[in-house]
Amino acid sequence: MYDVYAVRKDFPVLKEVVYLDSTATTQTPVPAVEAMNEFFYRYAGNHGRGAHRLARETTNHYEDARETVARFLNSEPSKTVFTKNTTEGINLVANSCPWEAGDHIITTLIEHHSNLLPWLRLQKFGVNITVVHPDREGRIDPAVIETAITDRTKLIAVTQASNVFGSVQDVERITKIAHRHGIKILIDGAQSAGHMPVDLSTLGCDFFATAGHKGLLGPQGTGVLYIKEPDELESASVGGGAVSEVSGLSFVLEPSPACFEAGTPNIPGVIGLGRAVEYVKEIGVSEIEKQEIMLARETARRLSELEHVEVYGPENRAGVVPFNVRGLHAHDVALILDQSRKICVRSGHHCAIPSVRFLEVDSTVRASFALYNTEEEVDILVNAVNELKALVG
Amino acid sequence: MYDVYAVRKDFPVLKEVVYLDSTATTQTPVPAVEAMNEFFYRYAGNHGRGAHRLARETTNHYEDARETVARFLNSEPSKTVFTKNTTEGINLVANSCPWEAGDHIITTLIEHHSNLLPWLRLQKFGVNITVVHPDREGRIDPAVIETAITDRTKLIAVTQASNVFGSVQDVERITKIAHRHGIKILIDGAQSAGHMPVDLSTLGCDFFATAGHKGLLGPQGTGVLYIKEPDELESASVGGGAVSEVSGLSFVLEPSPACFEAGTPNIPGVIGLGRAVEYVKEIGVSEIEKQEIMLARETARRLSELEHVEVYGPENRAGVVPFNVRGLHAHDVALILDQSRKICVRSGHHCAIPSVRFLEVDSTVRASFALYNTEEEVDILVNAVNELKALVG
Repeated sequence: MYDVYAVRKDFPVLKEVVYLDSTATTQTPVPAVEAMNEFFYRYAGNHGRGAHRLARETTNHYEDARETVARFLNSEPSKTVFTKNTTEGINLVANSCPWEAGDHIITTLIEHHSNLLPWLRLQKFGVNITVVHPDREGRIDPAVIETAITDRTKLIAVTQASNVFGSVQDVERITKIAHRHGIKILIDGAQSAGHMPVDLSTLGCDFFATAGHKGLLGPQGTGVLYIKEPDELESASVGGGAVSEVSGLSFVLEPSPACFEAGTPNIPGVIGLGRAVEYVKEIGVSEIEKQEIMLARETARRLSELEHVEVYGPENRAGVVPFNVRGLHAHDVALILDQSRKICVRSGHHCAIPSVRFLEVDSTVRASFALYNTEEEVDILVNAVNELKALVG
Repeated sequence: MYDVYAVRKDFPVLKEVVYLDSTATTQTPVPAVEAMNEFFYRYAGNHGRGAHRLARETTNHYEDARETVARFLNSEPSKTVFTKNTTEGINLVANSCPWEAGDHIITTLIEHHSNLLPWLRLQKFGVNITVVHPDREGRIDPAVIETAITDRTKLIAVTQASNVFGSVQDVERITKIAHRHGIKILIDGAQSAGHMPVDLSTLGCDFFATAGHKGLLGPQGTGVLYIKEPDELESASVGGGAVSEVSGLSFVLEPSPACFEAGTPNIPGVIGLGRAVEYVKEIGVSEIEKQEIMLARETARRLSELEHVEVYGPENRAGVVPFNVRGLHAHDVALILDQSRKICVRSGHHCAIPSVRFLEVDSTVRASFALYNTEEEVDILVNAVNELKALVG
């Protein structure tokens, strides 16, 4: 087990607050910020666009980051596209696939808006959408997905770990079901990559979209889209760097990943992300997973024991603990926790309105954990929530 | 006039190289990098998604940057969308407009691929494209654009300053022509914003896309899209943060700019961009323009006097000087300049193959200037190019 107190020194803001909002964004470790500073101060150029030393060094560092991220997810660099966030990756797939009217997509009620709206939007082109329901704890039964398959189903889009329930889906089994029916599958890994081992070659999914600024500890403005068969997808976003030939009114796209990264990318962000992923690898993602699960389950267990608190999600959860205090609005709970103890928790619908409504509430408080959180922070949270009892009579 | 030697201290890499590739990317000043570090080390949270102090402080800084950028371009925050680059902004417009088969778009041969390919791609949906030609110096005659207008023309897409020729187009007149015919106009400001005064309210164009990492001196991974009538455009990229309501299979988008910024944005990048734009304002964009023009015209004049050199573009150019050395490939010239004098110039087709072919070459060398360049650097370049005479006999 790694030394969490040593790790915390790499995240200066943790000295100031009890940060329990890593599902929204993790903090970025000092070595990753320093890698970005080194880019700005020592060798900043544009990527892949020049013969001079700064352009070459920039391109090398950027492509090294791609190699690092690809290896971390057991993918290949040519299948590893840098995006600005999970959302862009999913929209890129939604807008680039050649949909026909009558095509059918299956997604679920536990999706983040970013893995729901891009599919719902396709209804304007005649694509039909089925949204399958979870159980009360936010788990999707793969058999329910299989039941929803029709002979026009082209894609299943499902999250690996829910940001509302903390539930983890059996994406291996759902992938097998999809492929048995000749259907492609997209996995939203925003809350899984960096929080639990992800092996894309073994998993075999067709698309995997994740953020750089969550479990991977990179800066905001970075994301990763894995495309298993990039030659089958024609990018809906084109421009500089994505094209090898333009003649008259026609053009020829570059091979992947260049064809999916039109325009100047977030070079400092990607370089920071590469360094952050190395940081995650040095600590070990399985060790990180153990720590996050331990803290989340302890928090959920102790909050459940409080009479004025309702906790949601399954017992064997990932590092996400949603709850409500009876008689208090989630936003008020979050504000009080912030003001009284500098505890940073999220409140609201967590960009997943259907999920939260499924719980028959309009919002929840969410405590979420990353590799740098401690048992002392769990104590502080549980004690502070306990004290709210006085407010609710 | 500002003190260019004082300014140079804010760009540490300039001590190491003669950086003449600011058309590809400018360098980012220390105060902007420090603003990003302050975000990472002191208050990093996610944008607009939480009640706790870090989320609030992050949102405030991010929206302050929007205000700064909007004011700088004489726009309004609600019409000022942050993108990851110019390319994303142009693709967002291309993919979000409700095109119908038979619609017509006019663009030009001097466009960067990023303001050409997104329109050419629309041909697959039955949209017709006309590409109007410039004169030999890369200037578009507005009358030629007017001649190309048909009763199905929906959009004119034109660059303000060419990255290949250094020519500056009369976008005021082209905008008036477009509007007289009831046609919308998109201006690619990648090479204008921050290099010359841009007043979007006076200009009156419908869309203006630019990069954060060029004249605005921000980090790579940032861009700005101005949308004059955001309510008329339905974003093709949807997800978290872009939506106010999701019910069953339908959803309601947030007002602009949120509806165009789905997913976690490049928060550190935007905060750095905001600080960089303040930096540009402090120096004064008109002063910057004077310095860049002076250096570029001096360079063009002196290179033209060398018998073995051909210089392209108009006499009254912006800060871009494309040239070739007779008998040497552009890439070889760039490599030699780098190796002999640490001069960083671009070589190749500059992501604008049709423009370069129009010059009847397959590549050019391009020296380009920013606020931090000096007359001494012009001397170094001209002397180094002069010495190449020995190589070409």
